[in-house]
Amino acid sequence: MNFASDNWAGAHPKIAESLTRHAGGFAASYGASEFDRAVEMRFNEIFEREVAVFFVGTGTAANSLALASVNRPGGVSFCHREAHAIEDECGAPEYFTGGARLHPVDGALGRIDPVNLTRELKRFNPAFIHAGQPMAVSITQATEVGTLYSLSEIAGISTVCREHDIPLHLDGARFANALVSLGVSPADMTWRQGVDIVSFGGTKNGCWCAEALVFMDPSHAKDLPFIRKRAAQLFSKTRFIAAQFDAYLDDGLWLELATHANAMAARLAGHIRASERIRLAWSPQANEVFAIMKKSVSEKLQQQGAVFYDWNPPHSETNRVEEEEIFTRFVTSFATSQDEVDRFGDLIA
Amino acid sequence: MNFASDNWAGAHPKIAESLTRHAGGFAASYGASEFDRAVEMRFNEIFEREVAVFFVGTGTAANSLALASVNRPGGVSFCHREAHAIEDECGAPEYFTGGARLHPVDGALGRIDPVNLTRELKRFNPAFIHAGQPMAVSITQATEVGTLYSLSEIAGISTVCREHDIPLHLDGARFANALVSLGVSPADMTWRQGVDIVSFGGTKNGCWCAEALVFMDPSHAKDLPFIRKRAAQLFSKTRFIAAQFDAYLDDGLWLELATHANAMAARLAGHIRASERIRLAWSPQANEVFAIMKKSVSEKLQQQGAVFYDWNPPHSETNRVEEEEIFTRFVTSFATSQDEVDRFGDLIA
Amino acid sequence: MNFASDNWAGAHPKIAESLTRHAGGFAASYGASEFDRAVEMRFNEIFEREVAVFFVGTGTAANSLALASVNRPGGVSFCHREAHAIEDECGAPEYFTGGARLHPVDGALGRIDPVNLTRELKRFNPAFIHAGQPMAVSITQATEVGTLYSLSEIAGISTVCREHDIPLHLDGARFANALVSLGVSPADMTWRQGVDIVSFGGTKNGCWCAEALVFMDPSHAKDLPFIRKRAAQLFSKTRFIAAQFDAYLDDGLWLELATHANAMAARLAGHIRASERIRLAWSPQANEVFAIMKKSVSEKLQQQGAVFYDWNPPHSETNRVEEEEIFTRFVTSFATSQDEVDRFGDLIA
Amino acid sequence: MNFASDNWAGAHPKIAESLTRHAGGFAASYGASEFDRAVEMRFNEIFEREVAVFFVGTGTAANSLALASVNRPGGVSFCHREAHAIEDECGAPEYFTGGARLHPVDGALGRIDPVNLTRELKRFNPAFIHAGQPMAVSITQATEVGTLYSLSEIAGISTVCREHDIPLHLDGARFANALVSLGVSPADMTWRQGVDIVSFGGTKNGCWCAEALVFMDPSHAKDLPFIRKRAAQLFSKTRFIAAQFDAYLDDGLWLELATHANAMAARLAGHIRASERIRLAWSPQANEVFAIMKKSVSEKLQQQGAVFYDWNPPHSETNRVEEEEIFTRFVTSFATSQDEVDRFGDLIA
Repeated sequence: MNFASDNWAGAHPKIAESLTRHAGGFAASYGASEFDRAVEMRFNEIFEREVAVFFVGTGTAANSLALASVNRPGGVSFCHREAHAIEDECGAPEYFTGGARLHPVDGALGRIDPVNLTRELKRFNPAFIHAGQPMAVSITQATEVGTLYSLSEIAGISTVCREHDIPLHLDGARFANALVSLGVSPADMTWRQGVDIVSFGGTKNGCWCAEALVFMDPSHAKDLPFIRKRAAQLFSKTRFIAAQFDAYLDDGLWLELATHANAMAARLAGHIRASERIRLAWSPQANEVFAIMKKSVSEKLQQQGAVFYDWNPPHSETNRVEEEEIFTRFVTSFATSQDEVDRFGDLIA
Repeated sequence: MNFASDNWAGAHPKIAESLTRHAGGFAASYGASEFDRAVEMRFNEIFEREVAVFFVGTGTAANSLALASVNRPGGVSFCHREAHAIEDECGAPEYFTGGARLHPVDGALGRIDPVNLTRELKRFNPAFIHAGQPMAVSITQATEVGTLYSLSEIAGISTVCREHDIPLHLDGARFANALVSLGVSPADMTWRQGVDIVSFGGTKNGCWCAEALVFMDPSHAKDLPFIRKRAAQLFSKTRFIAAQFDAYLDDGLWLELATHANAMAARLAGHIRASERIRLAWSPQANEVFAIMKKSVSEKLQQQGAVFYDWNPPHSETNRVEEEEIFTRFVTSFATSQDEVDRFGDLIA
Repeated sequence: MNFASDNWAGAHPKIAESLTRHAGGFAASYGASEFDRAVEMRFNEIFEREVAVFFVGTGTAANSLALASVNRPGGVSFCHREAHAIEDECGAPEYFTGGARLHPVDGALGRIDPVNLTRELKRFNPAFIHAGQPMAVSITQATEVGTLYSLSEIAGISTVCREHDIPLHLDGARFANALVSLGVSPADMTWRQGVDIVSFGGTKNGCWCAEALVFMDPSHAKDLPFIRKRAAQLFSKTRFIAAQFDAYLDDGLWLELATHANAMAARLAGHIRASERIRLAWSPQANEVFAIMKKSVSEKLQQQGAVFYDWNPPHSETNRVEEEEIFTRFVTSFATSQDEVDRFGDLIA
Repeated sequence: MNFASDNWAGAHPKIAESLTRHAGGFAASYGASEFDRAVEMRFNEIFEREVAVFFVGTGTAANSLALASVNRPGGVSFCHREAHAIEDECGAPEYFTGGARLHPVDGALGRIDPVNLTRELKRFNPAFIHAGQPMAVSITQATEVGTLYSLSEIAGISTVCREHDIPLHLDGARFANALVSLGVSPADMTWRQGVDIVSFGGTKNGCWCAEALVFMDPSHAKDLPFIRKRAAQLFSKTRFIAAQFDAYLDDGLWLELATHANAMAARLAGHIRASERIRLAWSPQANEVFAIMKKSVSEKLQQQGAVFYDWNPPHSETNRVEEEEIFTRFVTSFATSQDEVDRFGDLIA
């Protein structure tokens, strides 16, 4: 009953197998091999256009370098107040941009509210240099709280971006989970709604360590080779990331794994809905489930073998958590079995 | 006949096998699992003392974070003029330290000359803030040009460090190659000679991606967890690095692979010494061989299937390369076969 | 009727006169002259303890270097959501710290609410490195909206700081205005309430360009000489700042000027209170007055010669500004005459 | 007999007088006043073209922001090995660029040798990202060792810049001293020879604190307002710099002061040439004189009231300084009197 994190799952056997298959022989290092290029090319198919792809080692690196690529003096990026970039990256985006700011924007259920976004952007008068200059908006899909932006919601955010002439970044650490939940194509979920840069995550969905920074317009990525190398994210034996993505994208493995993870989350949510001891914070749309329970209940469940995290509630939800209660997070993954979900269901019944 | 780089070799089968073995099951992420801790503990044995170990993804990251950990305002680190940190890391050490400088020091055959080091340090009067303040010395072992510091040479550098109260970092991207060539222990090659921080590389010697930043005194590494996370070098599924090091350190695999690579380099050097068409720049002591030849000879060899790089000669050696000649680098690895070395020998005979 | 900013006023004649008096003769540069030291020593008297003083050129520099001096990897400083450091310094604090974050805290009337501060700090679990680590709290006195922290409110904030073991910085761009309004001593308003570092501003109160970064405990300022020089804030002819502070602190000039500026603000507020065309946003406590009026009224007043700024209302006040209204700021200074205040009063009567 | 530094001189009476004259009245802050604009416009006349001008507070700021304005990921700027930016700015250029490197180039008498420059640039293959990318060349005129580039030498450097498509920056902390020594116009010494950005210094030549960053092509300075503000170099009461430059440029005051300083240096050099106790390191061309003497002689002279600095000899000159000798620097300024020069002459006769 391990619901700690999709990062606690290891690698899917097909990922491990691909790595082993590509272990032997010589191949040009630092991304210059034919194999690297071939795997990069697969992203063109996935996104139905020519994109520029850069493999990096962590999601934090992908997000940070995305912002570094659009960096401006006094630059300000707009994210949801509980965005991963703000809450979980130890200041990496600010560090890699030499201090460009993340400006928190509020919105219900992990989604930037475009009205709030517009209001915050309005505080930045282009002629008033003291405030700095807007440089990007970054949304997370699926969000940090297991919800989704609909396509039209993404389009709504991108419309605001266009009005202010700033690019839209999408943190897709759980890109596949969002995609299969919405039942749309990668092109639909990104550039067709005006997304410019994607952090395309593989790690949480069954890879060891495979993240891709994808630029919808390759002309915007000209400095990326230097930005990535300077950030210590250009691996020498790049094939070890390429081999992961190769298996990940083969025969729809990535979609299959995400579908399973999402189904497990939905099943878990069903158990929680049925329980009188735990209540669902909101309905999950991907592979994260948030629940509120008494501290004593949580302790009992952990003793019984359930693994999950206490979590800071979103600012907007703080008041819903009563004095003796705690806010908790459950994450499912490709490695979550229906059996353990149901065992947990039994515990809380 | 691939002598392009030890980074062109993939992963040793035992490394790949260990990764696969550790692919399944749940394990705490971000370095918190028992397995991560167990592999970290192995470094205590290797170094014969309690050390602090931080796994990172690239050698550039290890070097950059080593310097970030000793960062000072106006800080200046002293490296050999052709150090990897200066010539091959795209400014990463300066980037990760927010601008601390690498000050080049000359010395024959890739080794900092302690006389030059002392002379350069003398230019920094502690009361003269305009010059900045020395913050570290960084040496590379094996050096970028395939040579070695003897133990007493390391001790000589560290004596200068002590006199100026600055730490000594050792870039050990080819740590194992140096170790087996000198025939000494890790403790002898490091802290017993006054080395404080080691970039302990596994990647070039048969791993996919396994680098460890090792602090001889754990009390100097207190901020490292934040430094590493902020630098996007804390992998979520840390076991994939731990699994590599686990196999790498088992039964002396790392020493065995380095011994082989060095032997291949020595054999290659022997062929070059016997040749009249190529001349050895100097005798190799690890797994890199540098040679000078006519451009026409180089082109012919490449046509015949030999893979090696043109290389910028060290500043001190520039004059030895004649007008129509080029300076070249050959690197051997665990994957280099005696057969291909001998075939190259035949070509240049 | 110029109420644009205290920065629109030039220099008080005594400041200009002091500069001229110190123009001649040779004096050690870069802060090393006896005169520099003598003026620095005056701050010991003012603060009734031995402090460390560093002259810099702008308030933004003082605030940024204050934070740089307590910098930590993944560091987070807590400021009011509308703090000058956040809203008006173009990202300088983040830039000078290499990316340490400013975390906005809400509170009424420009003052951090200690309950909100505690709640935000609680989100940073020391063992959870992903969130980064708190490194400072920064308050502004007088605040950006012309209000004041009482001594006990400062003590309340510093108590929270002590509980979390982080230093308290006070942005005193309008230090003198706050001091004379509260009628307390510099020691009372700072270290006796637990303030550790002060940006002591002279510029807005009659100097050309005179800001001092003051450390209540000199042992915390050891790296400051390098931090200041590296930040291009060590002026070569430091006497030109010292000469300003010398006159500024002589015979209580600084207190006299601030008293006048505050009185003019109070008088202006009185006129606004009496008006039916403008309403006071809240009662001023120092030299800034905020008012809400119809856009048409504002345009008329500007045509009639009144100079003041449209201003972004505090987030908490946004709703008080009606559709056709605007939020405005009026600032008085040593150079504001009673006559122009009264003329403005006539206009709005 | 004060030859410590041109920074030890205060301000010329006309500078002080101008400041006092502009002390009163209201003027738009942050560079927006008509007076600021009018003084900025004077630089168009001086340079005989439309330029973009940014006043900053220190020469270190001017140089650092010049490089920040041409910043690139992995960027490398080429300076003389003993350039002020390398030896005397405590790492500020690297700090303000977030780590872009200063690459030292050798050359006799403080001047970059274009042959060495070309050789160093050749080490940066555009396709080899590991080395980083050249981003600028920076020369100092007058150089740190009191010599000058001739116009054709500047043109020679700029030709190399054009070949590598990188801009040429000129550190003109002693711009006027160079100009009057060469007897040319500002246009001739800069853009007509291919200089793109100039740090135009007034401080060392009689101002308190007046430095201007001048872009020959205003289109290259679009981000400068943000770059300057973020760097805490946008003064609120900008007129205090404008007033200095206004007087400085009036009636050729700046040229007159530099002419005097140079003449004093030449006279001082004459005395040294005639002496048997001190020898001239080389002939001065501006207002700095370098001399070698026995340590005992230096001590005696200092006791007799002469003030000058021990100085690190240029790397290329190290060997000329004998064991018991020291290398020293003498600087003259607008405030140096012929009498004190001659008194020193008497001491060493």
